[in-house]
Amino acid sequence: MNDGALRPARIDPGNPSFDEALADARALVDAELRRALAGEAGPIAQAMLYACKGGKGLRGFLVLEGARLHGLTKVQAAPVVAAIEALHAYSLIHDDLPCMDDDDLRRGRPTVHRAWDEATAVLAGDALQSLAFELVCRATIPAEARVMLALTLAQASGVAGMVGGQALDIAAETAPEPLGLDEVTRLQARKTGALITWAAAAGARMAGADPAPLIRYGDALGLAFQIADDILDIEGDAAEVGKATGKDAGAGKATFVGLLGLEAAKARARSLVEDACAALDPYGKAADTLREAARFVTSRRK
Amino acid sequence: MNDGALRPARIDPGNPSFDEALADARALVDAELRRALAGEAGPIAQAMLYACKGGKGLRGFLVLEGARLHGLTKVQAAPVVAAIEALHAYSLIHDDLPCMDDDDLRRGRPTVHRAWDEATAVLAGDALQSLAFELVCRATIPAEARVMLALTLAQASGVAGMVGGQALDIAAETAPEPLGLDEVTRLQARKTGALITWAAAAGARMAGADPAPLIRYGDALGLAFQIADDILDIEGDAAEVGKATGKDAGAGKATFVGLLGLEAAKARARSLVEDACAALDPYGKAADTLREAARFVTSRRK
Repeated sequence: MNDGALRPARIDPGNPSFDEALADARALVDAELRRALAGEAGPIAQAMLYACKGGKGLRGFLVLEGARLHGLTKVQAAPVVAAIEALHAYSLIHDDLPCMDDDDLRRGRPTVHRAWDEATAVLAGDALQSLAFELVCRATIPAEARVMLALTLAQASGVAGMVGGQALDIAAETAPEPLGLDEVTRLQARKTGALITWAAAAGARMAGADPAPLIRYGDALGLAFQIADDILDIEGDAAEVGKATGKDAGAGKATFVGLLGLEAAKARARSLVEDACAALDPYGKAADTLREAARFVTSRRK
Repeated sequence: MNDGALRPARIDPGNPSFDEALADARALVDAELRRALAGEAGPIAQAMLYACKGGKGLRGFLVLEGARLHGLTKVQAAPVVAAIEALHAYSLIHDDLPCMDDDDLRRGRPTVHRAWDEATAVLAGDALQSLAFELVCRATIPAEARVMLALTLAQASGVAGMVGGQALDIAAETAPEPLGLDEVTRLQARKTGALITWAAAAGARMAGADPAPLIRYGDALGLAFQIADDILDIEGDAAEVGKATGKDAGAGKATFVGLLGLEAAKARARSLVEDACAALDPYGKAADTLREAARFVTSRRK
């Protein structure tokens, strides 16, 4: 077992660049998952590792940066960084299933039910959700903080959060009228926003600090992220984005671009990025990497 | 909100009968789930409630009885009782999916994907898993105990536990040779045993006591339960059992009855029940309701 990335050292107090911190978070996820699944040889464990690879690692980065801002070590942050990426990967596997969005491509590679089969995809997703809670419970932080992380993760991912948002999204497909702007905003706040906000606020919760500024940051970032996603669905190239594009618009789905128009959607995303950056004021310059991340979200090409 | 069943009172120190305790556990599950899902009106929440109904509530009973043995109140036990039934219900919903066991009938009613659709079944199962961890984190017991419960629940339900066992079961269907007795025993210890043992040991963990005797009880009970299930698959009547019977044997699946013969399987189940009862010696007569439960398992008709 290679514990090189997990040496008990304070996270560098100087601000890392966004790219460095992203790469750092991805390395922590990889090490934690390999360690957690070291005893498992079957197709489920393989599919779990496969599904956690190839993403940007934005959610894991948010946990890592929030932890750094609150003086936590990488050893303390690593299981929580891996937990949010495991939970996100589970949601993608299940969203891609034939009975849901029926996607063949994810992150530029076949989806899990295409690379294996549907049963493996259901079970690998299920096991990644279990693993996320296991990892949160293993973090070397006070028990009160671990309980608060696990409780809020369960809420953010459950029927009041991510799963509820996904259900609204599916219901909207067969609704007689397309959703309005308020409805789409509320839907996305649950479907993608809840977990992004959880990731942003995790560092404060790990340290027993007030999560309010990071919650405000995460809420604005999550919505900006979704608007940017809708813009990419229109403007992006499938090969570059790594999944099918033009799909939402083609399906007559209500999107921020469809509701606001392309230019107004871009302006709204920029304004949300400014809100996100302003929410970080209490942290001063130490939060510049999180500000860089917010600006990246509206400029990304994939 | 009706909190009648949740008044903060010590669990009756006199031994309840098995039937009374089962009914008590089912009432706690119902009250906890209704409270947890009170703000949710959509089909996912409806399917979640539907899937948690109609079962015996054996796992919830095990949590409740273990809690009573360790002097905990019903208020303290209730969220954990509901958590294990929510987790069990999630596993049944996903096991019944067309890509898994493809069952139309469960507990005498249409399975969730038949009563709603596959997407609702996947999401309701996912949300029940989240809810199980949320409920464990909400129990009014020390944070250390909540973390230990959540951690062990994640392990028992994940790739090293229930999901891993289900994957082995699916793999066995297409394996060139049927499984041997040791392999079927190991498979069932993961697929159904891990959660039964978790339920049995939860009360000790809630109280910060040594869970070893209840783990031994749960391990023996879980295996006896699975052997009894195989016997019911042969001897049971579908209408009474509430799901298709003769299915495992018909599918050429390795079962305890197939490997041992009917009479030897019955003898093995009886011997395991005696082991389970003996493991409760440290609790004396206070554990008689758990002993009654173990004996029920091999005499049940559904």
